[in-house]
Amino acid sequence: MIDFRTEPSRYRHWKLSFAAPVATLAMDVDENATLNPGYELKLNSYDLGVDIELNDAVQRLRFEHPEIKSVIITSGKERVFCAGANIRMLGQSSHPFKVNFCKFTNETRNAIEDATRNSGQTYLTAISGACAGGGYELALATEYIIMADDGSTNVSLPEVPLLAVLPGTGGLTRLVDKRHVRRDRADFFCTTEEGLKGKRAVDWNLVDEIVPRTQLTTIAARRANEMGARSNRPSGEGISLTPLARTIEERRIVYQHLTVEIDRDNATASLMIDGPAGAPPSRLEGGLDADFWPLAIARELEDAILHLRFNEETIRTWIFRSRGDSGLVKSHDAFLAANADDWRVREINLYLKRTLKRLDVSSRSLFALIEPGSCFCGSILELALASDRAYMLRGSREGDEPIPANICLTEMNFGPLTMCNGLTRLEGRFLGEPDRIDELRSRISNSIDSMTAEQLGLVSFIPDEIDWDDEIRLAIEERAAFSSDALTGMEASLRFGGPETIESKIFARLSAWQNWIFQRPNAVGEKGALKLYGTGSRPEFDPRRV
Amino acid sequence: MIDFRTEPSRYRHWKLSFAAPVATLAMDVDENATLNPGYELKLNSYDLGVDIELNDAVQRLRFEHPEIKSVIITSGKERVFCAGANIRMLGQSSHPFKVNFCKFTNETRNAIEDATRNSGQTYLTAISGACAGGGYELALATEYIIMADDGSTNVSLPEVPLLAVLPGTGGLTRLVDKRHVRRDRADFFCTTEEGLKGKRAVDWNLVDEIVPRTQLTTIAARRANEMGARSNRPSGEGISLTPLARTIEERRIVYQHLTVEIDRDNATASLMIDGPAGAPPSRLEGGLDADFWPLAIARELEDAILHLRFNEETIRTWIFRSRGDSGLVKSHDAFLAANADDWRVREINLYLKRTLKRLDVSSRSLFALIEPGSCFCGSILELALASDRAYMLRGSREGDEPIPANICLTEMNFGPLTMCNGLTRLEGRFLGEPDRIDELRSRISNSIDSMTAEQLGLVSFIPDEIDWDDEIRLAIEERAAFSSDALTGMEASLRFGGPETIESKIFARLSAWQNWIFQRPNAVGEKGALKLYGTGSRPEFDPRRV
Repeated sequence: MIDFRTEPSRYRHWKLSFAAPVATLAMDVDENATLNPGYELKLNSYDLGVDIELNDAVQRLRFEHPEIKSVIITSGKERVFCAGANIRMLGQSSHPFKVNFCKFTNETRNAIEDATRNSGQTYLTAISGACAGGGYELALATEYIIMADDGSTNVSLPEVPLLAVLPGTGGLTRLVDKRHVRRDRADFFCTTEEGLKGKRAVDWNLVDEIVPRTQLTTIAARRANEMGARSNRPSGEGISLTPLARTIEERRIVYQHLTVEIDRDNATASLMIDGPAGAPPSRLEGGLDADFWPLAIARELEDAILHLRFNEETIRTWIFRSRGDSGLVKSHDAFLAANADDWRVREINLYLKRTLKRLDVSSRSLFALIEPGSCFCGSILELALASDRAYMLRGSREGDEPIPANICLTEMNFGPLTMCNGLTRLEGRFLGEPDRIDELRSRISNSIDSMTAEQLGLVSFIPDEIDWDDEIRLAIEERAAFSSDALTGMEASLRFGGPETIESKIFARLSAWQNWIFQRPNAVGEKGALKLYGTGSRPEFDPRRV
Repeated sequence: MIDFRTEPSRYRHWKLSFAAPVATLAMDVDENATLNPGYELKLNSYDLGVDIELNDAVQRLRFEHPEIKSVIITSGKERVFCAGANIRMLGQSSHPFKVNFCKFTNETRNAIEDATRNSGQTYLTAISGACAGGGYELALATEYIIMADDGSTNVSLPEVPLLAVLPGTGGLTRLVDKRHVRRDRADFFCTTEEGLKGKRAVDWNLVDEIVPRTQLTTIAARRANEMGARSNRPSGEGISLTPLARTIEERRIVYQHLTVEIDRDNATASLMIDGPAGAPPSRLEGGLDADFWPLAIARELEDAILHLRFNEETIRTWIFRSRGDSGLVKSHDAFLAANADDWRVREINLYLKRTLKRLDVSSRSLFALIEPGSCFCGSILELALASDRAYMLRGSREGDEPIPANICLTEMNFGPLTMCNGLTRLEGRFLGEPDRIDELRSRISNSIDSMTAEQLGLVSFIPDEIDWDDEIRLAIEERAAFSSDALTGMEASLRFGGPETIESKIFARLSAWQNWIFQRPNAVGEKGALKLYGTGSRPEFDPRRV
């Protein structure tokens, strides 16, 4: 079982050091501390375990270190920056693992960009030694890349010539869309095993600056200080991300505010969210820690999403439910909206946003069941809006609370929690209907019953007590009977109407092609390049262009 | 060998009738007239042969029929509109064929939308009987969908539940992005084998209007007339698309202005374009027919692209060359720009645009070689700008013409020939650098030598006589040694920096996922749904979500 929970004292691969306002995150991979047997993490190559630590570090730097305004990513090894994802690990991994590995590493790089853009914590890269493949893709996720000009340090994306796969952790997209590397130069660069170095790398905008090797550390620190000086992060106390409590049983995963029930017969996981137990703090000072409900629920949801993605591959439909006091969710959302300028609240909002984005790109069918006693309000309603379908019980039901189900919109539905394509889930739901968004905005805080919710287009179906059980059961059984792959492709298309961004293009265009390539004999067949890498045998390719 | 050339008198599957200003294109598939043995085209299902005729009809309606302002697509069969792509045909096809089949049918549907949007020739669909899968995707490409309300007529996208593949001919994208069908409704619709009919289909915006079956023809004609009334197509003489002359030898394909040389050892096709032999007509009247050079070259290029895609799968790199008088290309471009408002010139410009778009989405490496005596000017320069790399000879070469190679920009590089993402190739090349585009515009008509071309970023490399042969040879050999699939994914990413449109999303997001699914055992394995369809056996699916 893969566990995504970690903390700095347990890191095996990264060295985190602080010289406020600058932190340094040095990659120093322990080649024997692999997640699975069968490979060694030589040359600062990485597996999922290395990226789990990176993800944790990025997260903690945001929450626990307000004093850190910029972060230098560098290598702790003398002769190499990073050789990218470990090839033997990829070669021996299953297709689902490869796809989910890339998804997670992409999300970590998105989080780095999110910190730079929205948290006043700018990431830079200082490269000395070879920086290849996923190593350079990591650099591409940072705002500024400094490279030693020493004749041996270089950047490269050798995946196509060496491995017959793509630089799929955002590399191709960030080259042309973020750094605006001219497409023909990108073509040359991506087909040149040995990569580029020195002045040409700067001229082509592959890196921002080259410096003598002896000055790399000094100049990186200087640039980090310059960029950090523009940060709006205040100094002060951070929020300590205390260990996340979780119990895993055969059919249940229990967190403090989230219980996941797994039904293996129907291939479903039901994720029951408990609303807050009390009101948010009346004043901001001193009131926020890891127990603050919105932060706690974001952490638990994120962990559950990652756990289910990797450890429960055959659980194909995730069903969101909730219970609790809708009014308390509303007051928490109001607190988040009122204090959005506070750096801690900003981090919590951004974390909720990133967690919900993980949901959008999860290859699972998402259903929401909105029943009496639920609290699908504002930020929690986003779970229903992220779902492929939302069912809401019309009227009440014997044995239920007397009050029929209702939902509620808050400010959180109208801006802070955008999808990776830059739209709110409401904008994505009502493409080309801005008037509809205005009308919904006028209903903020109102309790919306099932009939109104359906009229407003906020839920998919509103069966009554008589139909509810059968309709839900049939929908779930039907989902379990379909091809997983067809559903993945369908959901990836229907969930992302509207514009595309760098982030959404990485998920859609780049990752979809990579997934295809990860199925092709040229890469993964017995004579494919990914299988044969390092064996000394030459791959054999199907000569057809498809 | 698949031949894309046809004409109405040879149609087996479509009945084209005229009642100006309305034409009717009735699908009436001859179930025995298949492109390959092994399947029958029952229930108005289609194979590539059916779509080749449709593509031809759409093309001829634009060029040969200025009097036609709107086109009704309907069925010539009593009980069925169209059952979509033939499943047995798909089941028995190779992966490359499936992918290229979908690409071509998508392009035909894009051409329908292009006619509606830009040619004043609006397409409508009149549906009576079942309209399933690719049948409904065809309807989605039209501007207005009328459906009989007779209890049996319906629209459906049953690919996911029946076949474990996607509605991949634009269906998913057009549902949410074009018709703004709400994503949860689209989810329900795409997982419901039997589809939707009647009022619910209108309420969900799957169709625009339902009418009693007996009135379908009358009302479709009325709507067609209403829409045609807004057209700006003049009446007058059309341009007859006379038969395209072509000779195919083992290693050569010869058209009038284009010679394709195939080198099987290096897996390349060299496409040599001959510039115009004389000046464009001085006056517009009476001067345009199928021999007009820009139209002739568009037709020849399009035919060559389609031929090479389908009939030469192992020819993996296409190399564009040209020879002729650059000044004459320039004067033809000037003619096209000066007469852009004339409907015939408009059609030629749109046709050039569509042909170049086919190139962008062709899964072949594209190189351009710019040598002394070449005429890469304006519209022909677009071939170099569409290429993954352009090599331009610096200086002159023994045995060549004394004048070194030069290129030239015209108005055609700055607007009419946009890619499917809505950008000109120059805009895509210089993303985020509008000043650069302004500077290039100031050089329109100037002769640009190799050094300047490189400085301006218009070409990739400028080897001199000493390096030229080796550098080109190595680049070509290297390309031939790479995995075809990795190149396809890489090129599909690097060619399309910048924004996405419905059309580009269909190519990128939807088709990439479909290609992946077309490789997955759930669809194409021995127990996959596509293989077993119609056999009575139930498919068996890998239960993992990837």
